Amino acid sequence: MSSSSPPSPHPAAPADGPGASAPVTLGAPGPAPEPDALAAVDPAALEAALAVVRRGCQELIVEAEFRRKLARSMASGVPLRCKLGLDPTAPDIHLGHTVVLNKLRQLQDLGHTVIFLIGDFTSMIGDPSGRNVTRPPLTVEQIRHNAVTYFEQAALVLDRARTEVRYNSEWCQPLGADGMIRLASSYTLARLLERDDFSKRYAAGQPIAMHELLYPLMQGYDSVALRADLELGGTDQKFNLLVGRELQKHYGQEPQCVLTMPLLEGLDGVEKMSKSKGNYIGISEAPGEMFGKLMSVSDVLMWRYYELLSARSLQDIAQLRQQTEDGRNPRDAKVALAQEIVTRFHSAAAAERALEDFEARFRRGAVPEDMPEVHLASAGAGLAIASALKQAGLVPSTSEALRSMEQGAVRIDGQRIEDRTLMLTPGSYVAQVGKRRWARIHIA
Amino acid sequence: MSSSSPPSPHPAAPADGPGASAPVTLGAPGPAPEPDALAAVDPAALEAALAVVRRGCQELIVEAEFRRKLARSMASGVPLRCKLGLDPTAPDIHLGHTVVLNKLRQLQDLGHTVIFLIGDFTSMIGDPSGRNVTRPPLTVEQIRHNAVTYFEQAALVLDRARTEVRYNSEWCQPLGADGMIRLASSYTLARLLERDDFSKRYAAGQPIAMHELLYPLMQGYDSVALRADLELGGTDQKFNLLVGRELQKHYGQEPQCVLTMPLLEGLDGVEKMSKSKGNYIGISEAPGEMFGKLMSVSDVLMWRYYELLSARSLQDIAQLRQQTEDGRNPRDAKVALAQEIVTRFHSAAAAERALEDFEARFRRGAVPEDMPEVHLASAGAGLAIASALKQAGLVPSTSEALRSMEQGAVRIDGQRIEDRTLMLTPGSYVAQVGKRRWARIHIA
Repeated sequence: MSSSSPPSPHPAAPADGPGASAPVTLGAPGPAPEPDALAAVDPAALEAALAVVRRGCQELIVEAEFRRKLARSMASGVPLRCKLGLDPTAPDIHLGHTVVLNKLRQLQDLGHTVIFLIGDFTSMIGDPSGRNVTRPPLTVEQIRHNAVTYFEQAALVLDRARTEVRYNSEWCQPLGADGMIRLASSYTLARLLERDDFSKRYAAGQPIAMHELLYPLMQGYDSVALRADLELGGTDQKFNLLVGRELQKHYGQEPQCVLTMPLLEGLDGVEKMSKSKGNYIGISEAPGEMFGKLMSVSDVLMWRYYELLSARSLQDIAQLRQQTEDGRNPRDAKVALAQEIVTRFHSAAAAERALEDFEARFRRGAVPEDMPEVHLASAGAGLAIASALKQAGLVPSTSEALRSMEQGAVRIDGQRIEDRTLMLTPGSYVAQVGKRRWARIHIA
Repeated sequence: MSSSSPPSPHPAAPADGPGASAPVTLGAPGPAPEPDALAAVDPAALEAALAVVRRGCQELIVEAEFRRKLARSMASGVPLRCKLGLDPTAPDIHLGHTVVLNKLRQLQDLGHTVIFLIGDFTSMIGDPSGRNVTRPPLTVEQIRHNAVTYFEQAALVLDRARTEVRYNSEWCQPLGADGMIRLASSYTLARLLERDDFSKRYAAGQPIAMHELLYPLMQGYDSVALRADLELGGTDQKFNLLVGRELQKHYGQEPQCVLTMPLLEGLDGVEKMSKSKGNYIGISEAPGEMFGKLMSVSDVLMWRYYELLSARSLQDIAQLRQQTEDGRNPRDAKVALAQEIVTRFHSAAAAERALEDFEARFRRGAVPEDMPEVHLASAGAGLAIASALKQAGLVPSTSEALRSMEQGAVRIDGQRIEDRTLMLTPGSYVAQVGKRRWARIHIA
């Protein structure tokens, strides 16, 4: 994990504010190149870079500003500072979390710097009102541990050499109660209540503890301390990202741009990917599992995953898509995607083995191109194998299911199942009974 | 100026909150006397003490709680801690400010401790939003200077030996940004918006900067740090005083009681005493001026001043009032009050001299008991003497006024006026033209 050198003195007050005890300089101000230098930037290169940044994104605020930042960086050679704020509480990440990481990697490949910002300061506080039991305070050790775990996973996507890891306690701790009051003075209540969930709660008479209103300001202050040029986040983070923009203006800085990425759909192609919905691919899942899950997605979802998860260029993807539309088996594109992802999180060799295993299994069973899709509900609990086979219509009764298993006629994802007590946890499976009966079972 | 020993560790978090890093103990917990000891308190003495505390007050919240505190203190001999928070920006005090100081003195005379709390912490910050130009940040030196000036004036009323002077930077500084967040977590937005001016501003769409919402919490936190039993303030402070009560509960302390005092009416008997309205008596005004101004108040207002400003017991005052109602000249009571006040802020000798001067002047003029009361408006600018005499109906024209002055026939407060350009600033005056024409002129 790379870590940056200590920053300049923290911003105790806005440089132009009446309460400022001293003018503030934070980090290295980006050199402003001559207008001539900007004019010398190749417009085609600029547009190409912008297209990479825009790829798959939900919103880029404000595009014209970002174009200027990009042009200035290209002219001066000073990389843009692209911030991703992280709550160090949930280090077990799935492909949905990597959408933003992919975007950051694309920015790194364009020469820019990524700041992997660990929000350790507020995590050490937790939710002191005690209203939110899922947010207990974390110890410094837990936070460091989670951050390392998170970064080790993220580094499978990011370029370590262009990643700066920072902890916001670095500037939040020395802020002090007085700095907190100055920070609070830079924003009005009305603007904070513009946040959708705040306004709804206020209107509904649900309590909003005062510290909840301070958290967006703390997050925005991180952008000031880091002199961020761009902040990334999910669409649900848009309000907080915009606060950073406003605070930077208040502290006399050029405001950051904001890039929101969509939430990735899960394997079902409908709901957003989430562990609790069972429609996810964890990035530390075994190569075979990861490969199989990716092969199970629909063709439509495959192209979405290409856009948001693949490192391939948009041109490459467009070409592949054209070939598929011209009659090439979509399975080829799916295999290529699954191999790319498994290679990223494991290795090329592991991806190769996963493909071979997958093909071997399907050769044994000669998996048909089309088979019935069956959706079964289990409220997240999973289903016993016999019950799943019956509900999928592959056997007339559970006793018939058990008999078939005894005869070695039942396969799940190509593997013969003999354990009569096997539970199928929520997820998608290719189920086979005998030679002819097939179904793709989705258990939710 | 007495100053206390350093306090126990500051309360970083509520003792019972989930974010508490350690249980909190602040100051010396008052020993809880046995129920037997409480029962041994003389009920008559308790009621007498309570009557002293209630004298002239606007509200005592919650009286039953305060009665228990008082009884416990009487049983245990542990004084109650009575807090007065001060903004160290306006050290020039008038009689209106001494209403609360008198109440504190009464509490001291009952054996309790007064905490003279200088809000230096937020004064050093000022209003960082820059919206409030009357609240620039003060330096430590300015604050100390103002506090000393204020205390030197207040000590004319207070008992120095029973006064603890504290500065809230003592616990606010070490609070840190994290302590500030914990403090904010203990209160909801909705409860802060119950404050009248906040709710009006919010409803009117006027901006409320976030730090303004933090200030009542800081003030309340002072009560936690001081383990206050009682906090005093003007009626306009009621909301903030109640916040302290709530925060103490949150931090596991017995809540303070709240005693609000009315705003003292100025010399006109109508508007509250204020420097800008010119209806005030500054406590450092010369003895003669102070005496004369007190002699100019109406008989009704005199009794109000007795209640709120005099150190005499309520019994004494009731007796004096009875005598007056039975035919004694109210002037005697007014002289006694004026002498008491001048003695307090100057000396007994100065009060004696002031009375003699006053009487000598009036002997010259034989001031009638009754004379017309005339209220003149000048929008605070004052009036030229000739114009005031004409408007008061004492002369038919300003040229007649000037002629009377030339003849030495015009007196203001017993003094012959020959300066034709004299301006009468806002205030009350006894004006006399010749032997017969009198008026009490109130200029606003």
